[in-house]
Amino acid sequence: MKKLINDPDDVVDEMIDGMVAAHPDRFRRLPDTQVLVRDDAPVDDKVALVTGGGSGHEPTHAGYVGDGMLDGAAAGDVFSSPTADEFEALIDACDAGDGVLAVVKNYEGDVMNFDTAIELAEMEGVEVDSVVIDDDVAVEDSLYTSGRRGVCGTILVHKAAGAKAAEGADLAEVKRVAEKVVDNVGTMGMALTSCVTPEKGEPTFDLGDDEIELGIGIHGEPGTERTESMSADAVTDELTEAVLDDLDLDDGQEVLTIVNGMGGTPQMELFVVNRRLQELLGEHGLETWDAWVGDYMTSLDMMGASITVCAVDDELKDLLGAPADTPALTVR
Amino acid sequence: MKKLINDPDDVVDEMIDGMVAAHPDRFRRLPDTQVLVRDDAPVDDKVALVTGGGSGHEPTHAGYVGDGMLDGAAAGDVFSSPTADEFEALIDACDAGDGVLAVVKNYEGDVMNFDTAIELAEMEGVEVDSVVIDDDVAVEDSLYTSGRRGVCGTILVHKAAGAKAAEGADLAEVKRVAEKVVDNVGTMGMALTSCVTPEKGEPTFDLGDDEIELGIGIHGEPGTERTESMSADAVTDELTEAVLDDLDLDDGQEVLTIVNGMGGTPQMELFVVNRRLQELLGEHGLETWDAWVGDYMTSLDMMGASITVCAVDDELKDLLGAPADTPALTVR
Repeated sequence: MKKLINDPDDVVDEMIDGMVAAHPDRFRRLPDTQVLVRDDAPVDDKVALVTGGGSGHEPTHAGYVGDGMLDGAAAGDVFSSPTADEFEALIDACDAGDGVLAVVKNYEGDVMNFDTAIELAEMEGVEVDSVVIDDDVAVEDSLYTSGRRGVCGTILVHKAAGAKAAEGADLAEVKRVAEKVVDNVGTMGMALTSCVTPEKGEPTFDLGDDEIELGIGIHGEPGTERTESMSADAVTDELTEAVLDDLDLDDGQEVLTIVNGMGGTPQMELFVVNRRLQELLGEHGLETWDAWVGDYMTSLDMMGASITVCAVDDELKDLLGAPADTPALTVR
Repeated sequence: MKKLINDPDDVVDEMIDGMVAAHPDRFRRLPDTQVLVRDDAPVDDKVALVTGGGSGHEPTHAGYVGDGMLDGAAAGDVFSSPTADEFEALIDACDAGDGVLAVVKNYEGDVMNFDTAIELAEMEGVEVDSVVIDDDVAVEDSLYTSGRRGVCGTILVHKAAGAKAAEGADLAEVKRVAEKVVDNVGTMGMALTSCVTPEKGEPTFDLGDDEIELGIGIHGEPGTERTESMSADAVTDELTEAVLDDLDLDDGQEVLTIVNGMGGTPQMELFVVNRRLQELLGEHGLETWDAWVGDYMTSLDMMGASITVCAVDDELKDLLGAPADTPALTVR
């Protein structure tokens, strides 16, 4: 195994300390937890937006904690859900009395533990609601989900719902915006290589030297098709057509796109993919309002990429373009 | 070879088109070149700041083009210097009559071609000066340099000199600030794996399963020591002590640090390194003013990291903390 870590058992704990050491003015770690919250949490007169999930997807989740996005995030062990107790501690620390919206990616552990945490928080008198993200168009059910998986489209939920919360909207309104993003976004990913978890120290799955996998999940879950290596343009076409088939957009629709790296992919390659993506959207009569390229939701050191397309109207453009100040995403 | 590319001969051309497609409001590609400039270049009443070098280090160079940093950047082929003609086109496109400062990383090709370009531009009546960056403390001379290599500290030159230029300072003042950063910054890197260039399609150098290389350059040039795998803390200590030995800072000195990923390193690991880095600086009696963690200057898909330490005074803090708006670095 080639990793810049110490004891694999300590990697999440040390990562979180390293995040706080990088951003002592932004983050506060709740004692005896793997939960990071805004240093000024709970923020008064605002619905709190929280999320969480397994580690190994950095900058997801804590990278999006800050002004205009999340109030806090719970980190599980690598590719494991945080416990219900940690989710509850997160909710409690972020609630300022105006309610909390939990953004939950559709994985069984996340959904179950967040549900339990929400019940516990409600018993304490906290108003909590949740929205489940299932933007991955590749597979209907999968290894860790019933229904579709939640992947990179989640970042747009953090951004839009975070901006709505920052405006002072109430919980129902913040939830409505989150669901609006979910209704209008689709993602599909692919891998050139498997990720290697710190614990296992070897590839999670085997992929031949001349093979790639389409429709893969962010934990290396099986996708739709294992196929021979393809050109970047051909990969882009496969992923994008699958997303567009799912979204079924009207001619002239404005979209935001994300070319997301899986952690081990050079930016050079992501821009090569973006070139073909934008060309293809033009061929479909779609108009790109904004195009993001980078590592937003990764799978440790996996080489590969995902493509996200989100249809945007004036309301979503206002919210997605509103100011935000987080370690992983800053909008002026 | 596992890469998301089309023809290796087209990768830089397609990457640049993909960058423009992601940021059509920010970038303009000069016709028949691999040069990107600010869409509003030349910017009036301001010294222009330009740079360039081989591709494969993204987000270096074009990622730092924008308000408060660079006016433009020339991209060579992968790990190859841009031609003198491209550097000259860059200088010409960015000069608004107030002069141009070229930020040159110390590689023989970059230095030679920028020098020729500067001579050509001066013959056209453009006032041009340059500053050479040589922050890599690992080796004195190396494969592509006489003297030390220029690596990740370059980003701080872009930031500080870019902020000074944005203030309306004259060319001599902008150059003074650039040289002040050079005088106060040091970097050292290491690799867990070799990079793979699109052209060659296989590792640039061989590194055993249980080996790492300390002091490596950003093109896979040999470092100071090939050694057995080490813990993240031990690696951090080796790199940091080498940089601190070189800088020889006083007790209580404030510093900005960068933990820079080489392209294939998960963010998780960079934060584990940052944790130990900040601990170690405290043990040395140094005070961290700001800590950056991410991929700032990469080597394609190489796994590894570099550590940069820059001593900062009030002037540098003002400039490094001033607003900037570029694809790879935004300061509000």
